[in-house]
Amino acid sequence: MSHNSFGQLFRFTTWGESHGSAIGCVVDGTPPGLALAEPDIQQWLDKRKPGQSRFTTQRKEPDQVKILSGVFDGLTTGTPISMVIENMDQRSRDYGDIKDKFRPAHADYTYFKKYGIRDYRGGGRASARETALRVAAGGVARKVLGDAIRIRGALIQVGAHHVERERWNWEEVDNNPFFCPDPVMAGLWADYLDGVRKEGSSVGAIIEVVASGVPTGWGAPVYGKLDAELATAMMSINAVKGVEIGAGMGVAALRGEENSDEMAMNNDGTVRFLSNHAGGILGGISSGQDVIVRFAVKPTSSILQARRTVTVDGKDTEIVTKGRHDPCVGIRAVPVGEAMMACVLADHMLRHRAQCG
Amino acid sequence: MSHNSFGQLFRFTTWGESHGSAIGCVVDGTPPGLALAEPDIQQWLDKRKPGQSRFTTQRKEPDQVKILSGVFDGLTTGTPISMVIENMDQRSRDYGDIKDKFRPAHADYTYFKKYGIRDYRGGGRASARETALRVAAGGVARKVLGDAIRIRGALIQVGAHHVERERWNWEEVDNNPFFCPDPVMAGLWADYLDGVRKEGSSVGAIIEVVASGVPTGWGAPVYGKLDAELATAMMSINAVKGVEIGAGMGVAALRGEENSDEMAMNNDGTVRFLSNHAGGILGGISSGQDVIVRFAVKPTSSILQARRTVTVDGKDTEIVTKGRHDPCVGIRAVPVGEAMMACVLADHMLRHRAQCG
Amino acid sequence: MSHNSFGQLFRFTTWGESHGSAIGCVVDGTPPGLALAEPDIQQWLDKRKPGQSRFTTQRKEPDQVKILSGVFDGLTTGTPISMVIENMDQRSRDYGDIKDKFRPAHADYTYFKKYGIRDYRGGGRASARETALRVAAGGVARKVLGDAIRIRGALIQVGAHHVERERWNWEEVDNNPFFCPDPVMAGLWADYLDGVRKEGSSVGAIIEVVASGVPTGWGAPVYGKLDAELATAMMSINAVKGVEIGAGMGVAALRGEENSDEMAMNNDGTVRFLSNHAGGILGGISSGQDVIVRFAVKPTSSILQARRTVTVDGKDTEIVTKGRHDPCVGIRAVPVGEAMMACVLADHMLRHRAQCG
Amino acid sequence: MSHNSFGQLFRFTTWGESHGSAIGCVVDGTPPGLALAEPDIQQWLDKRKPGQSRFTTQRKEPDQVKILSGVFDGLTTGTPISMVIENMDQRSRDYGDIKDKFRPAHADYTYFKKYGIRDYRGGGRASARETALRVAAGGVARKVLGDAIRIRGALIQVGAHHVERERWNWEEVDNNPFFCPDPVMAGLWADYLDGVRKEGSSVGAIIEVVASGVPTGWGAPVYGKLDAELATAMMSINAVKGVEIGAGMGVAALRGEENSDEMAMNNDGTVRFLSNHAGGILGGISSGQDVIVRFAVKPTSSILQARRTVTVDGKDTEIVTKGRHDPCVGIRAVPVGEAMMACVLADHMLRHRAQCG
Repeated sequence: MSHNSFGQLFRFTTWGESHGSAIGCVVDGTPPGLALAEPDIQQWLDKRKPGQSRFTTQRKEPDQVKILSGVFDGLTTGTPISMVIENMDQRSRDYGDIKDKFRPAHADYTYFKKYGIRDYRGGGRASARETALRVAAGGVARKVLGDAIRIRGALIQVGAHHVERERWNWEEVDNNPFFCPDPVMAGLWADYLDGVRKEGSSVGAIIEVVASGVPTGWGAPVYGKLDAELATAMMSINAVKGVEIGAGMGVAALRGEENSDEMAMNNDGTVRFLSNHAGGILGGISSGQDVIVRFAVKPTSSILQARRTVTVDGKDTEIVTKGRHDPCVGIRAVPVGEAMMACVLADHMLRHRAQCG
Repeated sequence: MSHNSFGQLFRFTTWGESHGSAIGCVVDGTPPGLALAEPDIQQWLDKRKPGQSRFTTQRKEPDQVKILSGVFDGLTTGTPISMVIENMDQRSRDYGDIKDKFRPAHADYTYFKKYGIRDYRGGGRASARETALRVAAGGVARKVLGDAIRIRGALIQVGAHHVERERWNWEEVDNNPFFCPDPVMAGLWADYLDGVRKEGSSVGAIIEVVASGVPTGWGAPVYGKLDAELATAMMSINAVKGVEIGAGMGVAALRGEENSDEMAMNNDGTVRFLSNHAGGILGGISSGQDVIVRFAVKPTSSILQARRTVTVDGKDTEIVTKGRHDPCVGIRAVPVGEAMMACVLADHMLRHRAQCG
Repeated sequence: MSHNSFGQLFRFTTWGESHGSAIGCVVDGTPPGLALAEPDIQQWLDKRKPGQSRFTTQRKEPDQVKILSGVFDGLTTGTPISMVIENMDQRSRDYGDIKDKFRPAHADYTYFKKYGIRDYRGGGRASARETALRVAAGGVARKVLGDAIRIRGALIQVGAHHVERERWNWEEVDNNPFFCPDPVMAGLWADYLDGVRKEGSSVGAIIEVVASGVPTGWGAPVYGKLDAELATAMMSINAVKGVEIGAGMGVAALRGEENSDEMAMNNDGTVRFLSNHAGGILGGISSGQDVIVRFAVKPTSSILQARRTVTVDGKDTEIVTKGRHDPCVGIRAVPVGEAMMACVLADHMLRHRAQCG
Repeated sequence: MSHNSFGQLFRFTTWGESHGSAIGCVVDGTPPGLALAEPDIQQWLDKRKPGQSRFTTQRKEPDQVKILSGVFDGLTTGTPISMVIENMDQRSRDYGDIKDKFRPAHADYTYFKKYGIRDYRGGGRASARETALRVAAGGVARKVLGDAIRIRGALIQVGAHHVERERWNWEEVDNNPFFCPDPVMAGLWADYLDGVRKEGSSVGAIIEVVASGVPTGWGAPVYGKLDAELATAMMSINAVKGVEIGAGMGVAALRGEENSDEMAMNNDGTVRFLSNHAGGILGGISSGQDVIVRFAVKPTSSILQARRTVTVDGKDTEIVTKGRHDPCVGIRAVPVGEAMMACVLADHMLRHRAQCG
């Protein structure tokens, strides 16, 4: 058991705090003989790194990854892949205000109560900086999965404003700073978030991640359900408060005949489903359809508006969390969600192969 | 690793299919010296067992639990607690129609593709009958947690009809066949579900489970997050497609100042929160507030309306799933959700004690 | 984590005490589609069961196994295989003498100190009766491994009397009550053990287990070493105090040139080793040679000779452990050692397939 | 599951090869609030590092450890402790001879067969350099255990020459380059090993590790046996072929009355044992006596004497392994064995606390 590891056979362990000298992860269980180099990882980190638009934090973190082990002559060796990212922006900040106050909606209070230690430097392990390592591990996972499986994420809602499915175009995702598949909505979000930022506020979001090409049969019917592991994968991302598979929470309002995805034969002898309310997973096992997961990210907790809180010494006070914060942390959660999808699938690929050959 | 076990230190393993001679579970890691007897378990199984109203399946399963090990002179010994429930209603049914067809929205197709075996007798391990064992394990978990922690579940939505929070009364939960805390809505549901059943249809639902009295500090900041493990716990229940903590998917539409739960000191030196959007969990660690989780259950997939599907031999066909099915499986999911909450909390109680003393 | 489970991908969990109504195990991770029936298991249990000669305990335990799940139409389904053995010989014994005294060399004292509970009925989970379940799990493991891998065990030393390698004949193992491959030594042991038994004493033994046909490449170079897992497998058997691989403890006295097994090519392009000091494992990975493990079993702790001990209340006393005890528990440890070898190999077969395809 | 992690609650994961830029480990599960700094770790690494006498390899590896995370203001935070050691002596060696030949008794052949990759640079993960990380993790484990538990190791046999128990003096261990508690034998070994080295040969050894102050009750009666986990801990150290607890393999020749450790009351109400054949462990649970484990290390496989082997291309050949090898790798295994003892005990301390409070 480890509180800092994820996965069973494709398994990674992360370490480091946002204000230490470095953060890193160790990826274990990778099959040998896969082509892997730092750029394979860096491309995904670059999608997540801060400061790429005015809608994300302006911290300067190049997030350059170094591979320290597990690769020889350009190929994975089957041994642990250790990756490290140096922390560059650990400037000697004045923590005076934060040091003695618990920031509401952050982990400050619970972390202190659990460990008896007040690590005021940016949240310790509760910092979202840890998610860079998930993205790195996800880069390895994509190599394990191979090119036949495609994993794509999109931001589909910011505040109350959601994309229109009819306008969905995956190619648009790279054309705006929001990973938004709906160009109309992307324009609206830009204005909306400018307003939110100027008010010193923040707002929540919903991300959708889709995996295509997943073969039928991954997962297991009880506690190794593919959807159950996607749920823990996404809910373990900082600030996530809800996870949906396929029709999600909306299934409550559906009738059985609306919800059940009918099946029919293709001419080539394969099976097709006539809809995908199931999100590509039936009884915890992949059906061959697109695997679809959504998760909701709460608004950034660090805001410029004053909030009531208490001090470490037990006194009432107020707090304003200055600094360079994301007005909508949901944006940068998109590549993190993709990475967690990749890691869950890579793990289940190996788990399925172990049992069923 | 096991696809049939749940939890780390408080850990249970389940076995058995709905149409074998028995099902059972082994609960490991229980502290020694806890008073435990069969009625402690049976009371929770009785809440879940079928046939208690016209709104659940009419199968006759008394679900009598037997404890075969791990208890001596009325106390847990700290060794594995083996519990068995005999299957009484495995009548020699005519599977003729189902045997060769994959039931849509069931696990039939994916199960067959995974294992290469067609176990047509009620879904094999994918049968919701497995959840009886979760309830049994949950009964032990409640003993581990002790009386200071109270876990209660309620059905809060059936179809599009949801309870009113202002009418919420926990005591009403035992006064209707739906575990509904809102007596007005319970009446409405009765009529609504009668109609659904007569149409040979089914409908989805949402369950809310609340744990009170959980101390501050359980959970962990990264992959052992309390909410991430509640997510996998609930999503692993049959037919669940969405899980929410606190404000859930709704956080997307919230502003930072709306979402963040302010804090203030009580006169006795303890901390109180002025709201609970977080659902009692901050940074993956319990805050001392009520831990609140919701999950959505899809409509029963076995319905009397004809649906298109394919045969095991790869031919198009239609299917009507006769039998004694729940018009809303969400109802019986309430005690299951409670049990999974209990198991997650018991596990984290031990995990916290291990590391933090 | 579980203190009552063994293995990672081929994983079994055991439960039950020697004086409860039954004992059992749940085997998880078995590939689907393997032919399996109760006689496949029973044949191994029959080798271990008591009362087959005057050299083992005279308790009457038929050890009839029942398979309750995981098999359908004669084939494994890939789901948990639950097996149960009823305890038949739990006669209402007079524990008066033992109840309040800690039996030396038994787990009585440490068990009591750990759990705070005095389960005086035959040792609770510390009873060697648990090993019947290892034998049952081993029966399934052999099915996973298939016929190409052959696992055989032999008793090679009783007291100071060890077999001669030149006389080793595997077929003799079934011709005497000791699983002894040396017929001369088997005769000597019979006389020797008659003497030991008449003196109310007991004696230790050494078992050797050999697996032939194991392919090259199972295991892993660091913490998943095949030999390290065989070590824990064998040391976890009751009364075992030492484990050796290949040349074992004797390597201390060898020179490098004596110990290193030279290699040469066969005409068919395969590699052969000119000796097997390594016991078939190099760097934790199987070499294709016979995998050879030995373990030493201490003399039965229950003897008729008076020994000094203390009472539960903390008073000095003496104890004589009457009853029907094995003069040499090492004999019945032979099928247990075989079973553990099978379980470790089945697990590593699946683990290797998961990572390396 | 991970092939590169050890332990359950006190759990460490190692990474890196002997000829990469660095090696490292991540220690997870450490309780918060323990004083920890790099010198606490370095002191143990210095005992293991090469080149401290003419009896160990002359490679220059200062083995300076850096702590990258998990410590704040001199105290553990309860989060992962990442430690890194740079490889300094990865000189651009001529691997010409070794590159295409499998070194007998090394992992070369099996590693290649498993992974399909020939990492000829010093053995990859099979290099004993990995044991430096066990020593680092062991340094943290000692902090978890605290000062009341003392762990000491000694070399007790080199070739056929073993120490005399009557001359055992723990203080002598630091007075010779062998960690030998018997000053007479240390002198003999010096001469003996000079001869071995001059002959281009090597020799095996036996190490004994003793833990004093372990409380009664750690471990578990079945698969979490303290001795079973010590067995896997020691057998997982490079070159180890045998592990013994207490009387070890010698129990085979003992009578029941010789082996069973009698018990008696002390005046202060505590229990004492009159001997310790059990090595401090009864039924897998610590008894309060010294925990005693021994393990045998095979002779260094890299020797100057020509040995028959095969090439990667499948041709017969000979090999002479030049380089700076230890004539007796058993010497440097002493601090490694101590470290593994510390890790197993720290893990079981937390596991016991989790279940039994």
